[in-house]
Amino acid sequence: MEVEELVRGVLAGDRRAVARAISLVEDGRSELELLSAGIYGATGRAVTIGITGAPGVGKSTLAGALVGVVRADERRVAVLAVDPTSPYTGGALLGDRVRMQEHATDPDVFIRSMATRGHLGGMALAAPEGVRILDAAGYDLVMVETVGVGQAEVEVAAATDTTVVMLAPGLGDAVQMAKAGILEVADVFVVNKADRDGAADVVRELRQMLHLGPKRDWDPPVLSVAATTGDASAVWAAVEEHDAWARTSGARDAKRRARLLAEVESLAAERFKLAVAAALADDPELVTDLTERRVDPYRAAAALARRTPS
Amino acid sequence: MEVEELVRGVLAGDRRAVARAISLVEDGRSELELLSAGIYGATGRAVTIGITGAPGVGKSTLAGALVGVVRADERRVAVLAVDPTSPYTGGALLGDRVRMQEHATDPDVFIRSMATRGHLGGMALAAPEGVRILDAAGYDLVMVETVGVGQAEVEVAAATDTTVVMLAPGLGDAVQMAKAGILEVADVFVVNKADRDGAADVVRELRQMLHLGPKRDWDPPVLSVAATTGDASAVWAAVEEHDAWARTSGARDAKRRARLLAEVESLAAERFKLAVAAALADDPELVTDLTERRVDPYRAAAALARRTPS
Repeated sequence: MEVEELVRGVLAGDRRAVARAISLVEDGRSELELLSAGIYGATGRAVTIGITGAPGVGKSTLAGALVGVVRADERRVAVLAVDPTSPYTGGALLGDRVRMQEHATDPDVFIRSMATRGHLGGMALAAPEGVRILDAAGYDLVMVETVGVGQAEVEVAAATDTTVVMLAPGLGDAVQMAKAGILEVADVFVVNKADRDGAADVVRELRQMLHLGPKRDWDPPVLSVAATTGDASAVWAAVEEHDAWARTSGARDAKRRARLLAEVESLAAERFKLAVAAALADDPELVTDLTERRVDPYRAAAALARRTPS
Repeated sequence: MEVEELVRGVLAGDRRAVARAISLVEDGRSELELLSAGIYGATGRAVTIGITGAPGVGKSTLAGALVGVVRADERRVAVLAVDPTSPYTGGALLGDRVRMQEHATDPDVFIRSMATRGHLGGMALAAPEGVRILDAAGYDLVMVETVGVGQAEVEVAAATDTTVVMLAPGLGDAVQMAKAGILEVADVFVVNKADRDGAADVVRELRQMLHLGPKRDWDPPVLSVAATTGDASAVWAAVEEHDAWARTSGARDAKRRARLLAEVESLAAERFKLAVAAALADDPELVTDLTERRVDPYRAAAALARRTPS
């Protein structure tokens, strides 16, 4: 399929074209730049929601339940489960999709795992382009679900209009969440498995940490959800409330602008890094100086940067 | 303190100088380049061990127990607990250090949390310089403990000679670990809390996943440890076995060289990114074209990269 045809397909909301376009982003193929240019004008309409939290906290279950809530309103929705690549699985894992199977036959629901096999700059730069493809394809709502709760995962989940952070009893306490920088990026907290022992402690500890933190313009609500009922309407209401606040206060536009500029800077740096790697590979003498500790990494980087054409 | 004095202090193993040097790396101050150049010749002697795993899995407890084992052999040891910055805590958290307090008065043990407040490129680039400082200060063994189990944390833990990956029952299954790319980087697996329900399942599941994966030159052992006994001698034996294999097979030198070159490339790219950010800030027209979707991020990045002097 030619890129032009792919762009037309994405803009028409064709599922096969959307799937291919996301694969193209995953692989980091050279057509990516044409694809990006072709769809960019049609983006910015979808509401984007990030869902992050420790493994096993119930992110996919919540995402599936949220899909149910928004589908009741006839809205078209896409879920992007962002997985780092693992050679053990050959890319994306199916686990998350399995849990969302009840929506698999709904033509207005698109569910897809996304890995980062070859994209320059990895997950943090591949995910925003994946979201833009779904946005351009006409999905009203794009949910980004991350795996893991590290720095990179938090960054991906935070690169959305509304970030939902999930906790559950027994899966790392609020102090440990704070270490990953997660408290600052949350717009809505969901404490899952509220029917289990320790859930009230998680809520209390979280509220304490939020109280100790700096005052923010938006005060993130802390919701308790019982995993067994699967009812996500309260979570959805909180997301809509945040979205309404962010639109009217200007916070949404400011956040979108800041992440766009950061993305452009990172993309430019990743391009440059390829040129530097080539220059280093062409300079066995510098490599020897490095490995034999005559030139330190900072000096080598400065020297390479100076003589690499940008 | 002048940088020259700081360098002399680090090379002499002065604890105060070491602590200051690490703070300098955290802050990303300009003296960093002089510090790096001053100590680099004295590095490469320490054995480095990374410990990663989900929050609550027992990394600090294991690190503390390993300190006890190696101290019995009179070896000098440093532990670097790598935390992402959180404005809620003003930097590093003390939690991990508290658990290692029994070694706090031992002059041959250095324990330190490290955050990344201003270092270019964050944790992934600050941590290796922190390790080099401890190496240059004469510690025989440098343990790097990460918080969280995401892509960035795995990268930090993998940037050591021997990477220990910890699991425990109830803290995310092996499939979820695989998603973070963690199976590929482990040299030793430790299943902690072996006295709890489900520990045998974790071991079995992990062995299955390893069996399904590609054949590696080093077959990572899977050890079961009861958190309550605190005996880490079996873990230490496995680390030593891996270290001996990696030295004789050439795998250690190959790994060190690869991560050194990758670090230099990343440092050069981060320098360039600052220049790109400045160029973008100076070009309100391009920013408007971006936010109004006339120029897509990939095109903007290419244009900026071309005209930014490297």
